[in-house]
Amino acid sequence: MASKQSAPDVSRRSERSRRAIFDAALALVAEAGYPKTTVEGIAARAGVGKQTIYRWWPSKADVLLDAFLDLSEQAAEAAGQVPYTIPDTGDLAADLKYVLRATVDELQDPAFAAPSRALAAEGVVNEELGRRFVARLLLPQLELYADRLRSAQRAGQVRADIDPRIALELFVSPLAQRWLQHTGPISYEYTDTLVDYALNGLAPR
Amino acid sequence: MASKQSAPDVSRRSERSRRAIFDAALALVAEAGYPKTTVEGIAARAGVGKQTIYRWWPSKADVLLDAFLDLSEQAAEAAGQVPYTIPDTGDLAADLKYVLRATVDELQDPAFAAPSRALAAEGVVNEELGRRFVARLLLPQLELYADRLRSAQRAGQVRADIDPRIALELFVSPLAQRWLQHTGPISYEYTDTLVDYALNGLAPR
Repeated sequence: MASKQSAPDVSRRSERSRRAIFDAALALVAEAGYPKTTVEGIAARAGVGKQTIYRWWPSKADVLLDAFLDLSEQAAEAAGQVPYTIPDTGDLAADLKYVLRATVDELQDPAFAAPSRALAAEGVVNEELGRRFVARLLLPQLELYADRLRSAQRAGQVRADIDPRIALELFVSPLAQRWLQHTGPISYEYTDTLVDYALNGLAPR
Repeated sequence: MASKQSAPDVSRRSERSRRAIFDAALALVAEAGYPKTTVEGIAARAGVGKQTIYRWWPSKADVLLDAFLDLSEQAAEAAGQVPYTIPDTGDLAADLKYVLRATVDELQDPAFAAPSRALAAEGVVNEELGRRFVARLLLPQLELYADRLRSAQRAGQVRADIDPRIALELFVSPLAQRWLQHTGPISYEYTDTLVDYALNGLAPR
């Protein structure tokens, strides 16, 4: 009986530790930046031993990447986007506008913004971390847009000769650059405009 | 006579010091990052007194911004783009492709890339610096694209209801994001494709 009870106890304790470690990692990287965040600092703030962290993750980069994946899932959940997909109602413009509006909400959520900026900034100068960050967090999201554009190609709403992986950047990258570089305000009206311009083009029809 | 001769001497010495300070500032920020770069460090590396720097610039941010403006001018000069303008041959697609190809060259120049990444990374997490960086370095360049698009509107090649300031982001921001976040390779073929997609749109015509 004892061993049967202990399994869920351990699992609950592990889940609590995991949550505390993620929260500590995200808070530290937001406050101190990536270079000054250490596994020791995360452990101290989470109230666990350093070895608890090293049992689950080989490095601080790995803790942070998992913490970010978890944070993104929570943000998507808060925005009512679970599972994280792009709707396919048959109206491409409406579906893209819907998802980009949810992204605007996510980027303006302070819990998401500060740690995301810290990791993105480090990724700019630390190519190895940047590539891991992009491969685990950004590319899977971009792939959803590419899938939606492929579906639109099958439906005849996007030209067959368009490369979906490049095409999605016409509306995703402007939002990313405004957010990363403070080059302009972000709003629903702005992302709606990006979708209209990208689908219809700038030249007269 | 003596005072007449001393003026150009002082000016030559000043120009040499200015050049040495810019080179030191760019090298340090590329090697150590923005937070660890100090006016003292720049002065030591440039072989000048700290007071020489403070006589001309109130802070390290100001030295770096001037050093970057100077670097951008040199890069534009090396790319044969002086004065830094966007050609207006009447062929909008060709003119945009020409300038974006020159930007690809600039982004792949190591002398430009390392300090630019360091300042861009700091701008992501340091909003005040980011906004100054953008206002002095990025927005003037974006304004040239907006002007070229306005000229194209007058020529009937871009729809009159398009906002040029948003429209330019369809081809500028994807290149910026790939470079900043390592989300994909950059090449002439890639930027040419961006221009074609942005002008013609993704939807069938």
